[in-house]
Amino acid sequence: MKTNLVKADFKKIVSDIDKIDTDTILVITDLNVWSLYHKELDLENNLNGKKVIVWKAPEGEKVKEFSEYQSCLEFFLAKGVHRNCHLVALGGGATSDFAGFVASTLLRGISWSIIPTTMLSMIDASIGGKVAINTGEGKNLVGSFHLPHNVWLNTVVLKTLPEEELRSGRGELLKYAFLNKDIFNEINSDDSDLDKVIELCSQYKLKITEEDFKETGNRKILNLGHSFGHVLERVYHLCHGEAVMWGMVLIFKILDRRDLLNSLQQLKILLNWGEVEPPWRHRHFPTEDIMVYLQRDKKTTSSGAIDLILIDNPGEPLIKSFKFSEVQALLEKAEDELKTFCL
Amino acid sequence: MKTNLVKADFKKIVSDIDKIDTDTILVITDLNVWSLYHKELDLENNLNGKKVIVWKAPEGEKVKEFSEYQSCLEFFLAKGVHRNCHLVALGGGATSDFAGFVASTLLRGISWSIIPTTMLSMIDASIGGKVAINTGEGKNLVGSFHLPHNVWLNTVVLKTLPEEELRSGRGELLKYAFLNKDIFNEINSDDSDLDKVIELCSQYKLKITEEDFKETGNRKILNLGHSFGHVLERVYHLCHGEAVMWGMVLIFKILDRRDLLNSLQQLKILLNWGEVEPPWRHRHFPTEDIMVYLQRDKKTTSSGAIDLILIDNPGEPLIKSFKFSEVQALLEKAEDELKTFCL
Repeated sequence: MKTNLVKADFKKIVSDIDKIDTDTILVITDLNVWSLYHKELDLENNLNGKKVIVWKAPEGEKVKEFSEYQSCLEFFLAKGVHRNCHLVALGGGATSDFAGFVASTLLRGISWSIIPTTMLSMIDASIGGKVAINTGEGKNLVGSFHLPHNVWLNTVVLKTLPEEELRSGRGELLKYAFLNKDIFNEINSDDSDLDKVIELCSQYKLKITEEDFKETGNRKILNLGHSFGHVLERVYHLCHGEAVMWGMVLIFKILDRRDLLNSLQQLKILLNWGEVEPPWRHRHFPTEDIMVYLQRDKKTTSSGAIDLILIDNPGEPLIKSFKFSEVQALLEKAEDELKTFCL
Repeated sequence: MKTNLVKADFKKIVSDIDKIDTDTILVITDLNVWSLYHKELDLENNLNGKKVIVWKAPEGEKVKEFSEYQSCLEFFLAKGVHRNCHLVALGGGATSDFAGFVASTLLRGISWSIIPTTMLSMIDASIGGKVAINTGEGKNLVGSFHLPHNVWLNTVVLKTLPEEELRSGRGELLKYAFLNKDIFNEINSDDSDLDKVIELCSQYKLKITEEDFKETGNRKILNLGHSFGHVLERVYHLCHGEAVMWGMVLIFKILDRRDLLNSLQQLKILLNWGEVEPPWRHRHFPTEDIMVYLQRDKKTTSSGAIDLILIDNPGEPLIKSFKFSEVQALLEKAEDELKTFCL
């Protein structure tokens, strides 16, 4: 199966949903997104003869709690769902991560599609079928691989996004720029178009994930900036994309790649970041937290080592295994300088 | 991937586990089974340099509750597991259904194997990768498809099984006899050997499930006796296999197949059932419960119909779609006669 990734306005999305071969559409959305778009979609009236069952979840990461997962499954089951139902996720990455895990386990798996409503979910969470919920032990530790049938890109919705969400999206855009030269060039071009960049990122991720669905090989490059980023996100309460950006900065920094730091700074300006200080500047640097986290990371292998993603040149990522002790030594060596470092 | 289905005593099982390419073995077992076999297996001392982490679950269906699922995942995650761990289920069908669902969702899926300790799990639950837990809305409604790497058949453990468990196993054996002529003939042969019958059933199920992993076609025949059986199991508090047997009786009866009922009676005697009265004899017949259940069954399609499994001749199953109204009419027509019917 392949994901059908298409640009679509709400009218086309509704028409595509109407064509899905099922008599029941399950919707998982968050309260805020639903209030913004449910009138325009009007699924209850626009789908010919299909039953629509809507689960409105809490906003943000709260949806990915275990109790929500159980409640949502029991809600749909009590409505008498069957295996031919199709589930539509309408919302950001947390909503689609959650909805996809529900779809992958409800009645041992039903088909599903996504209408992403944040930049981050358009270029990242919506693509590639990695779905999960959180536990007390960490994020995304319980989940599965379950490819959506359709991902509809409607960039009009980005107009209503708060600044923090946009910054989060731009952080992931930066990541893609270092992974793929076309994206790097598009951001750097004189007539750079954000919609075009978003589309390129989604298509790039789709290609990588189709080639390595279960993340046993090259898909790992998509974790650029994430191994450190996840810790920075938690320690400094950053939004995800910003944390990924600083995660990249950190890896370039400890490997002493001034050239990449310069490129990153230039892209940052082109993407309208403005001046942002590193979150660790003049503060305690969380080497210890990073080491604890790395040892719990899903990417950690049995041999006490972790695969980190490095960049040779923009568009040329590589996967390199580091022993925990190596990572710790590199971080400790850089700590003092990091405290006063600016891009 | 294919499942490696082998006859093995505990010594060979331990040696096979030792050869698995991992440094950590997770075990899910029930308290009773663990107390019976952990000394003989002695995994903690018999595996060279592998860490062993054991989750002891409650016995029977209680393990398949949502709260157990969450607790077990959090238990393993707190121990610092990684994607290269291998999970071993040691127990009956409820234990392996549960363990398989944990394996399929822990860190988005880790590999697993099964040491089935009941006849029912050897010939049914262990084979084919259908794993699930229960919810308030019904059994096995949340789960996935996750094939085990190894299933080790050690029929020695059947010696310690209580009579009810053996009866449950024999009910499923009867089902296989109607699906496959070799099994039918083996039970009917003069030197019939129970171990041989069990092996044939496991191999037969493995073949069917390999051909149709996601149960979109022929795998459905394995549900012979189950659509009605599940309701009888609940209404009359029967063990699973016995309920399946009466589910088969019911389908043969409402379709007026005296010849098949005679064959079934003969097999029943050969399998040492003794005389057992139908659970509905002189009691209320649960047509209403059956209809409610069928409409919630995972096999129910959107068109208000359900696929039932019929037998043309022993060894010749067929899948036939019935409208709910047809099923109801057939049951209502048979109700009076069923109350006094004996095999």
